[in-house]
Amino acid sequence: MSKPYVLGIDIGGTNTVFGIVDARGQVVASDSIKTRKHTNFDDYVEELHTEVMRLLKLNEAEDKIQGIGIGAPNANYYTGTIDNGVNLPWGNNVALAEKVSRAFNGIPVAITNDANAAAIGEMTYGAARGMKDFIMITLGTGVGSGIVINGQVVYGHDGFAGELGHVIVKRNNGRICGCGRCGCLEAYASATGVARTAREFLEIRTDPSTLRNLDIDAITSKDVYDAAITGDKLAKEIFEYTGKILGEAFADMIAFSSPQAIILFGGLSKSGDLLMRPLVEAMNSSVMAIFRGKTKVILSELKESDAAVLGASALGWEAKYRAEVPATTSAVEAAPAAPVAE
Amino acid sequence: MSKPYVLGIDIGGTNTVFGIVDARGQVVASDSIKTRKHTNFDDYVEELHTEVMRLLKLNEAEDKIQGIGIGAPNANYYTGTIDNGVNLPWGNNVALAEKVSRAFNGIPVAITNDANAAAIGEMTYGAARGMKDFIMITLGTGVGSGIVINGQVVYGHDGFAGELGHVIVKRNNGRICGCGRCGCLEAYASATGVARTAREFLEIRTDPSTLRNLDIDAITSKDVYDAAITGDKLAKEIFEYTGKILGEAFADMIAFSSPQAIILFGGLSKSGDLLMRPLVEAMNSSVMAIFRGKTKVILSELKESDAAVLGASALGWEAKYRAEVPATTSAVEAAPAAPVAE
Repeated sequence: MSKPYVLGIDIGGTNTVFGIVDARGQVVASDSIKTRKHTNFDDYVEELHTEVMRLLKLNEAEDKIQGIGIGAPNANYYTGTIDNGVNLPWGNNVALAEKVSRAFNGIPVAITNDANAAAIGEMTYGAARGMKDFIMITLGTGVGSGIVINGQVVYGHDGFAGELGHVIVKRNNGRICGCGRCGCLEAYASATGVARTAREFLEIRTDPSTLRNLDIDAITSKDVYDAAITGDKLAKEIFEYTGKILGEAFADMIAFSSPQAIILFGGLSKSGDLLMRPLVEAMNSSVMAIFRGKTKVILSELKESDAAVLGASALGWEAKYRAEVPATTSAVEAAPAAPVAE
Repeated sequence: MSKPYVLGIDIGGTNTVFGIVDARGQVVASDSIKTRKHTNFDDYVEELHTEVMRLLKLNEAEDKIQGIGIGAPNANYYTGTIDNGVNLPWGNNVALAEKVSRAFNGIPVAITNDANAAAIGEMTYGAARGMKDFIMITLGTGVGSGIVINGQVVYGHDGFAGELGHVIVKRNNGRICGCGRCGCLEAYASATGVARTAREFLEIRTDPSTLRNLDIDAITSKDVYDAAITGDKLAKEIFEYTGKILGEAFADMIAFSSPQAIILFGGLSKSGDLLMRPLVEAMNSSVMAIFRGKTKVILSELKESDAAVLGASALGWEAKYRAEVPATTSAVEAAPAAPVAE
């Protein structure tokens, strides 16, 4: 007896956005809370539950939720926990799936990291509909990835596969990355990577640029974009440099899984031809001959404001883990407990 | 009505080895023909059929073959053809599955490249039994790979995924690779790569080495191994250099699919600690913290002489493609035609 809606929850570093989503991928209603208001995880779940229930009541959907899908940094699909959640206030090994399922009286919950959720959203509702093999690359503050092979998200043996922002693109003298190592793709091809490239170029080179009018330590990727579209040569070269590194990295990813498409999502992906032209050129000139011209690089078709919730919600349809809950008289019916892993 | 045996065929650059294999992975009998004797593919298939039938008769197995699995360079699982078969004499787009199935009167045939066949063999009969996520790396004349994710071989959207010998490990001044590009893993971490490293080290450096007693242009990886085990310092450094490059490349592969194990196969993998110690050290110091210490590097458990045939044969159990054949009175019963792709 399946129900008409799923609940999608996207736990970001600042906001936790949640939405009621129907089977066609329409966000029926959504709202948000502040992620960092409670340092105690139980308090956070309690507030989340209260606000979600309010939204469900408003939409007469209290007993119409089939499952809950959650996207969160370092969320592990297999264990249902957030491990090493460095950008979240609740420490390690947070029992996310269990506590949310319990709060919602046993509704099944599935969780994964935000980039995997984006990939699932794209496959279910976006540019990857009908694709069995593709790679989602999110170009935001960092570089995330969700990999789909044979129609399934790649979780790896431990649930943490798909960290393509942390393949090494510069083996010598590479930039220090947030992960503690040097030379990662993320240190070059993210929004912060573009800003770092701008600072490097401005310091090392002497040619004029409108970027020199700005406080060098405060330059953002948006500043570089604004300068580039007005024709600033140095700013355009920053995008060439970024696109080339991305395209070369994509060539190696293609050698691994030969995807039909690589789908770009996130702020930096909206840089248009400034980024896309050098990216595709570098990818095609770097890739093995047997793969040349086969893998498309395309943009996400999900509205950025909806994408995270949609992606998370898509996971809700297949959620199986239910927390053990005592028999109650809650509006939401209780269900028997089942193990997380299958 | 399933039958007790499969036929495994490994088409190598020199020999084509074939064997009758039972459900427990025992090679009941095997034989071989020369791959390059016929430049006409039909003549090759005719000889293969004749010799296989002789072996089947000898073992009273003419009507006991459930399916045929074939491993061959650049063999495409989806199309059933050998594309860009550079080391084979029959040109491009050779209809391997169709012609073999027809020669054998409609027995189902499945084909894949040799490294994927090795991975399937390892999963079915070897070190990867019970593993759902692993990567097979073959260190021979070249570097091949077969990737298994969620218990399935990764073929990619075009059937050519898993070319991990051709990820770029040196982006600047990399060695020219047989694939026509520069800096590929294969140009460093194969048997020929080790020989190239030896030549480079001997030319650039001046320290003594027993390798200097050999004809520099004829040095092989075996020579380097022999020198290293007798304690030759330069030879040992060649293995350190090779192992480090492999270990760093493995760290990037782990970021992609987080495998339970990376399984090594082929001549160079038998170098023992000379290669394994620097490899594992480099892998562990290069890999992201969340993956550290999780992925084992282990050796194939298949006998090298049997491995290729066993791997190919394992594919035979699931083979579905049958060529259309006219009704005949052959010893092998005819079967209806079915399309290659499902």
